[in-house]
Amino acid sequence: MKVSFIGLGVMGFPMAGHLQSNGFDVCVYNRTTSKAESWQSQYGGRIATTPCAAAEGAELVFLCVGNDDDVRQVVYGESGILAGTSAGTLVVDHTTASAELARELAEACAAQQAGFLDAPVSGGQAGAENGQLTIMVGGEEADFARAQPVMDAYARHSQLIGGHGSGQLAKMMNQICIAGIVQGLAEALHFGEQAGLDCGTVIDVISKGAAQSWQMENRAATMIKGEYEFGFAVDWMRKDLAIALDEARKNGSTLALTALVDQYYADVQKSGGGRWDTSSLLTRLHQG
Amino acid sequence: MKVSFIGLGVMGFPMAGHLQSNGFDVCVYNRTTSKAESWQSQYGGRIATTPCAAAEGAELVFLCVGNDDDVRQVVYGESGILAGTSAGTLVVDHTTASAELARELAEACAAQQAGFLDAPVSGGQAGAENGQLTIMVGGEEADFARAQPVMDAYARHSQLIGGHGSGQLAKMMNQICIAGIVQGLAEALHFGEQAGLDCGTVIDVISKGAAQSWQMENRAATMIKGEYEFGFAVDWMRKDLAIALDEARKNGSTLALTALVDQYYADVQKSGGGRWDTSSLLTRLHQG
Repeated sequence: MKVSFIGLGVMGFPMAGHLQSNGFDVCVYNRTTSKAESWQSQYGGRIATTPCAAAEGAELVFLCVGNDDDVRQVVYGESGILAGTSAGTLVVDHTTASAELARELAEACAAQQAGFLDAPVSGGQAGAENGQLTIMVGGEEADFARAQPVMDAYARHSQLIGGHGSGQLAKMMNQICIAGIVQGLAEALHFGEQAGLDCGTVIDVISKGAAQSWQMENRAATMIKGEYEFGFAVDWMRKDLAIALDEARKNGSTLALTALVDQYYADVQKSGGGRWDTSSLLTRLHQG
Repeated sequence: MKVSFIGLGVMGFPMAGHLQSNGFDVCVYNRTTSKAESWQSQYGGRIATTPCAAAEGAELVFLCVGNDDDVRQVVYGESGILAGTSAGTLVVDHTTASAELARELAEACAAQQAGFLDAPVSGGQAGAENGQLTIMVGGEEADFARAQPVMDAYARHSQLIGGHGSGQLAKMMNQICIAGIVQGLAEALHFGEQAGLDCGTVIDVISKGAAQSWQMENRAATMIKGEYEFGFAVDWMRKDLAIALDEARKNGSTLALTALVDQYYADVQKSGGGRWDTSSLLTRLHQG
């Protein structure tokens, strides 16, 4: 089956690789050509010089780029994905973007008899590399049924949440939960340090009970050591929280904690931590 | 081995029961005598009419009461625990209380050649009933070695954290983590409801990734249904957060999220939810 993949960043590069390794005939496009060449030399497959050319003849077109604007740039225009799709093509957007964009793209695709799914992922770079991503999908059931077996190349779990946009909204719920968990964990470790506790021993104990979280199990040890040069970057988290806070304004929900954590991440960025993992919230507390 | 247990609340009642069922010769004291009688009719054992009388002849004296003041009331005075201890008695306080009280009690016990451990628990009423509590202990290693095999009657895991008071400080770290996790989860569910999502489906998916937490796995479903008549009460959580915030003032840590969540819990109390589970934070968001 011919598929294409647009955007070979830290996520897209290994995701497209899994598709090629799983027997799909993959054509990739990336803005910086050298990255596409490096992908081809690692996995084989084909390279296109425009999103349009990549999409031509593909049954499914995946994309995974930076933000709403980046998505629009590769989708629209004479060299965009939509210029290359045929009736029946299914476009699957793995970018974490707004629900509004998802609904807009679904309409634009429908106007060309193409299908669309918003399909943001969680699991980070490690999940993309190991093919263990979780995918939250918005769109129609028949389209999901077509995409799921292909996405299995890099997903541990994919789930249709509801109509167009609901994949993005589910991803926002994910990020809101993480904001609370990481800030709570950061305050606890800050408190423990100030109180002179052996925080590693405390975490060992409390991770067995009601304070347990994935973040505690996977990030507390590196937070205690002050290691942040890995994982999911603060810059990306701020992008995601901006989408969530913007959506909250529209749907009338009040997210006091999420807004506060977003401001703390702004402070981490200011102090040079934009590329650090989200667990670097603890450094904000060290600033006083 | 003769042991005594002071305080037969929702935690102490089953904890003392596990001791008796595990072959210890238990003497209990409770302020309201009828509860002690009900305990005896269920488990056997002995009843004392004062904490002092309960402590007499016991190798270990456990207590689990409400707050710092309640602890002082059963420990000091002519009918208090310390009036009944001998040289070598070990007093173990399972109350969640201040680290300052723990250090004060350690001194008062030492003045009578008795040992002391602060040993707050986590795991809630269900953990106490199933004998699956987690216990965070502050004190001396030799005292911990004496107490641990006895506490095994109701603990899945107990751990010495450090000197006197460090058990309480570890418990505060636990509660700070929970404050962040529950508020994040509440905001996510509030957001999802406002956005019209099937929140149960979203939780199923995101609980497989970096947003996972014990709270999500054990409380999201009841939060979605609006069920809060169980679990760990808001009134108790506020007591614990007050201890943490007070300690933070002393040790110079800044806990913005914890302070905010404490205020939200005050609103839940005002709306009549003092006995509701901590997951009832979501109702605060429904208030707008």
